[in-house]
Amino acid sequence: MSVPKTQMAIVFDEDKGPLNYREIAVPTPKPNELLINVKYSGVCHTDIHVHAADWPVKNKLPLVGGHEGAGVVVGMGENVVGWKVGDLAGIKWLNGSCLSCEFCYNSNESNCAQADLSGCTHDGSFQQYATADAVQAARIPKGTDLAQVAPILCAGITVYKALKTAGLKAGEWVAISGAAGGLGSLAIQYAKAMGYRVLAIDGGEEKGEFCKSLGAEYFADFTKSKDLVEEIKTATEGGPHGAINVSVSEFAIRQSCEYVRSCGTVVLVGLPAEAKVVAPVFDAVVKSISIKGSYVGNRADSAEAIDFFARGLVKCPIKIVGLSELPKVFELLKAGQVLGRYVVDTSK
Amino acid sequence: MSVPKTQMAIVFDEDKGPLNYREIAVPTPKPNELLINVKYSGVCHTDIHVHAADWPVKNKLPLVGGHEGAGVVVGMGENVVGWKVGDLAGIKWLNGSCLSCEFCYNSNESNCAQADLSGCTHDGSFQQYATADAVQAARIPKGTDLAQVAPILCAGITVYKALKTAGLKAGEWVAISGAAGGLGSLAIQYAKAMGYRVLAIDGGEEKGEFCKSLGAEYFADFTKSKDLVEEIKTATEGGPHGAINVSVSEFAIRQSCEYVRSCGTVVLVGLPAEAKVVAPVFDAVVKSISIKGSYVGNRADSAEAIDFFARGLVKCPIKIVGLSELPKVFELLKAGQVLGRYVVDTSK
Amino acid sequence: MSVPKTQMAIVFDEDKGPLNYREIAVPTPKPNELLINVKYSGVCHTDIHVHAADWPVKNKLPLVGGHEGAGVVVGMGENVVGWKVGDLAGIKWLNGSCLSCEFCYNSNESNCAQADLSGCTHDGSFQQYATADAVQAARIPKGTDLAQVAPILCAGITVYKALKTAGLKAGEWVAISGAAGGLGSLAIQYAKAMGYRVLAIDGGEEKGEFCKSLGAEYFADFTKSKDLVEEIKTATEGGPHGAINVSVSEFAIRQSCEYVRSCGTVVLVGLPAEAKVVAPVFDAVVKSISIKGSYVGNRADSAEAIDFFARGLVKCPIKIVGLSELPKVFELLKAGQVLGRYVVDTSK
Amino acid sequence: MSVPKTQMAIVFDEDKGPLNYREIAVPTPKPNELLINVKYSGVCHTDIHVHAADWPVKNKLPLVGGHEGAGVVVGMGENVVGWKVGDLAGIKWLNGSCLSCEFCYNSNESNCAQADLSGCTHDGSFQQYATADAVQAARIPKGTDLAQVAPILCAGITVYKALKTAGLKAGEWVAISGAAGGLGSLAIQYAKAMGYRVLAIDGGEEKGEFCKSLGAEYFADFTKSKDLVEEIKTATEGGPHGAINVSVSEFAIRQSCEYVRSCGTVVLVGLPAEAKVVAPVFDAVVKSISIKGSYVGNRADSAEAIDFFARGLVKCPIKIVGLSELPKVFELLKAGQVLGRYVVDTSK
Repeated sequence: MSVPKTQMAIVFDEDKGPLNYREIAVPTPKPNELLINVKYSGVCHTDIHVHAADWPVKNKLPLVGGHEGAGVVVGMGENVVGWKVGDLAGIKWLNGSCLSCEFCYNSNESNCAQADLSGCTHDGSFQQYATADAVQAARIPKGTDLAQVAPILCAGITVYKALKTAGLKAGEWVAISGAAGGLGSLAIQYAKAMGYRVLAIDGGEEKGEFCKSLGAEYFADFTKSKDLVEEIKTATEGGPHGAINVSVSEFAIRQSCEYVRSCGTVVLVGLPAEAKVVAPVFDAVVKSISIKGSYVGNRADSAEAIDFFARGLVKCPIKIVGLSELPKVFELLKAGQVLGRYVVDTSK
Repeated sequence: MSVPKTQMAIVFDEDKGPLNYREIAVPTPKPNELLINVKYSGVCHTDIHVHAADWPVKNKLPLVGGHEGAGVVVGMGENVVGWKVGDLAGIKWLNGSCLSCEFCYNSNESNCAQADLSGCTHDGSFQQYATADAVQAARIPKGTDLAQVAPILCAGITVYKALKTAGLKAGEWVAISGAAGGLGSLAIQYAKAMGYRVLAIDGGEEKGEFCKSLGAEYFADFTKSKDLVEEIKTATEGGPHGAINVSVSEFAIRQSCEYVRSCGTVVLVGLPAEAKVVAPVFDAVVKSISIKGSYVGNRADSAEAIDFFARGLVKCPIKIVGLSELPKVFELLKAGQVLGRYVVDTSK
Repeated sequence: MSVPKTQMAIVFDEDKGPLNYREIAVPTPKPNELLINVKYSGVCHTDIHVHAADWPVKNKLPLVGGHEGAGVVVGMGENVVGWKVGDLAGIKWLNGSCLSCEFCYNSNESNCAQADLSGCTHDGSFQQYATADAVQAARIPKGTDLAQVAPILCAGITVYKALKTAGLKAGEWVAISGAAGGLGSLAIQYAKAMGYRVLAIDGGEEKGEFCKSLGAEYFADFTKSKDLVEEIKTATEGGPHGAINVSVSEFAIRQSCEYVRSCGTVVLVGLPAEAKVVAPVFDAVVKSISIKGSYVGNRADSAEAIDFFARGLVKCPIKIVGLSELPKVFELLKAGQVLGRYVVDTSK
Repeated sequence: MSVPKTQMAIVFDEDKGPLNYREIAVPTPKPNELLINVKYSGVCHTDIHVHAADWPVKNKLPLVGGHEGAGVVVGMGENVVGWKVGDLAGIKWLNGSCLSCEFCYNSNESNCAQADLSGCTHDGSFQQYATADAVQAARIPKGTDLAQVAPILCAGITVYKALKTAGLKAGEWVAISGAAGGLGSLAIQYAKAMGYRVLAIDGGEEKGEFCKSLGAEYFADFTKSKDLVEEIKTATEGGPHGAINVSVSEFAIRQSCEYVRSCGTVVLVGLPAEAKVVAPVFDAVVKSISIKGSYVGNRADSAEAIDFFARGLVKCPIKIVGLSELPKVFELLKAGQVLGRYVVDTSK
């Protein structure tokens, strides 16, 4: 497969600086890296945070963002084993880790202090050719639609991991706040495929219909409910066993600590820059609840999340535009006007 | 064994009312209950909260408080099996539960909505003869010192349960805040017996020596530390894997979310009436920490906690006074002037 | 509700003795027991073992067998709480336990040394009125079809427990041997509802179609396969993560140790009187497999198994005959000629 | 650090062939490998099996055996990160794995189908300079006695992993068969450090004293016991919660299935070439026991096992001889005449 010397990418040279669509060099993979011809990349709210630099992580600069890239392996470093040119591969937020710390030892590589992050500390998927550590790159089954799978590589893995973190049994109730959004709509589908009963929380009748069409058994409409906490407790006969806060609202998080069943688990998954979780100690203790932060998935979570998608159990509504139009997508995301997921086609 | 008709007890007739040392009738056990001749009862901070009625649980009135009673079985209802007169038995905070809800089904009987609480919704151990559900009453091995074991029945079980809730492996670090107090000093000993490495947090050199004598490997002195969070992280090479907040300070809880290791667990165990746990969502997610409320132990936790005591691995420094002196002990507790645990002798 | 003094029952007076359909006294519930008007009772292979006395458990004699009884509460002892006349209730194999041993403490009440067994050490459900410990009796939701739910009370709970014992994650493969039989066909449905991928093992095309209609994704036909172990490994890309041996064949058990994936779990659930599990130590160690015995479910397992049924996710093909015809059903069962489950109507 | 071109090693050219002490080339590390100057290597029974080729794994030939090597890093491939020359490093049985299969993804890298095994498929530690995958090589703390730590690198890790596999809580009983041997004596010490109560099984008074000196609370002497199973059940008040079979006797394994407590776990850890585990299905089911194979530890297990050693909680009696004397050590091992562990000094 012939690889060009240069390619098109969206680059910014300083934090918050302009997003330039320009020609840059195709990177050379290190001994442990794959070179992937990115076909499509999802656009995630995290990309906005990275560009705004409002998180306590220092960006590589200049930077190519993006961490939901799906493409084809076109080259690799000399030390790579188990991959061949032509394989489908995915670029995830976690590009690589040290493999030698206690977190890596215990499959918690996302928590590795030396984690290398696509589209943040490592040039990401908003370019035609990107590098990825061969150990962390996601394996995508032959024949998969690369545009459709792109959002699974971050959004899908993240909500799947959050659901695993809740530690529920099949047949138990899970509440999902922000259920009609990009993450939420994936969470409903994963939850259903895992055998859970889904209570979706969002606002408005249309969103309610949408959530139910994805598998939610009950829709709690916060624009109409007189007492959301009581409504949720009643609908689930005592409160859901787990609550997934894909919404980043402090108020929603606090409510989830109230409506969750005794011995249940509240999962925090969004990454609001400044928000706090506030819960009364007395209630937390007497109800014996757990509040757990869930970050991005490890290699196993990633493979499993992709497998659910590949088996047709999870779908993500996407809208495809050219990579050159990424700056417009950023504006739409900032304005909160995106339903489902934008995916950029790197060839345009 | 002959049981008298009347006995001496400390009773209060209304919330916050006077604690009267007076003669009352010996209660009659229900079909499922034991009648226990209480020899000694520990005095717990929870007794103060019950008397002050500053928790959202409604007291039985008039009420005999106390929930750390150790004594001898002198009678039982007709439906009791597996106990005989002369057995040693303990009265715990959880006097009885419904046995038929999902919490009881899963050994989480402390979370049963119909939990009956000694010294709160059920007359407790500040009397000479008390009743206890035969299923929940603690079995105390023959030959055990009843005065010494009394505080184990709440304080011991509670910290042991909190340590189990942290879900640590032998060899991992656990931080204990408020380590030199009644709960803390027991927590250090249980933690050591469970194979954990203990970092004790409290203030002052004397408390430091005390904590180390109980098995703490490191003492962090908040009166001297320039940066307690950093000191703890350094001493434990990355932060303790678990943190037990027997202290009820909001500030201490917030710090524990900061110093705990990634993927670690912060346990809330005290029951401050109004306190809140406040933690930044971003850090909780990126570090993937868990914040868990731990209430009182179930029957298994209780038996295990008593077993550690019976094997001599845990000791509790106690001071014995007569039951009639309980009002003075309450004053000392309210004034925060109690080191170790007061135990009342019901015969005086 | 008026309760008669006498009733019809199937009784045997000595082990292996004749099964007599005769009039006996209606039992009086103990303080902790319900009196249940049994409407329907499933017939289980275990009933044959009990009658043959070929297990190392001593029967009560004379004995009324049966442990899959579904009926209505018509009375109760004075110590019963949480039940009322008219509630629907189920009689399970585990009629009662001591509630005070380490097994009861940890929700493993099925392993209680003093377990009281319906239709074995306690008169069971092959009569019109039976007693059951109120703590262990199963709660059946109002409106449930009592004939349909009967087999869930042993067969359903047992396979559900076995699947839980396998400790699988949604999306993992489970192999079920003897998949077209009474237990197996329930196991397929529970497994599917729990999100697992099911590989069914049995013999013949018709059984294959049946298994697939219940949700099996792959059918391995031992009458046709040239190398069953290899076929199973290939179909599941490396072996199923769990294997449920409802079949009691020693050969099938041994094969399951071979085809199960490394780190996977083989569950033994049938109770063949003399069979042995035989596995090469070398393979077990190098593959790090677990072989686990799964007995009957506890109260939580029972409630959950009934909930799956009540939500319509599990169906059991039954054939209803009169109680008086039970001896014929025993003959059919012994001859291995029963597909699905026989249920007796106690009114006939 | 200057590295010579040649070195001394023990080599065999064909399975079962002579063990030659001869000069061979110092190997060159691959990009991902360390070059380690092995100072000491333990001698393990597995080395005998490899040489005899009586296991179904194909040896590299000619082969340098050994997989308990402790030494100093003297070089490394270009792709290695996180190591520097002068670090102390250990060579374990698991030299490297693919890092990209489901087993590697889930920290079960020992079960990786492409596992590379030191002293078996990869030249091992019976030489002065050996290579090891940088990801799998064990980190040994500065200042550690390299001769003492050598046996920890296989024997220590293996028994520690077996104990973890038993899944016990602090305060529970664990039986260790073959307790006075090399693995057993380490198992006693790890078990004690993990807070378990140890029942040691072996034969003879001297061994009994030895086991007790290491921390065993009870010694069951199979040369004297009239009914070993009953004796063990009595001593542990119902049977140990876990049983570690470091002994490879089929009879001992069968007994462990009998004496283990209900809901308990029997761990298989030795690798007898032909032995079978045989257990009655009925008992396994009714007692709900688990029989688990435990292979070698992963990176986390290894680091933890070394940490217990480094903290002085585990000691291994060793006897040091020159590498050139290895053939004699093999003879002693085959004859079953070794107490404790032989360690070879590669400089002699």
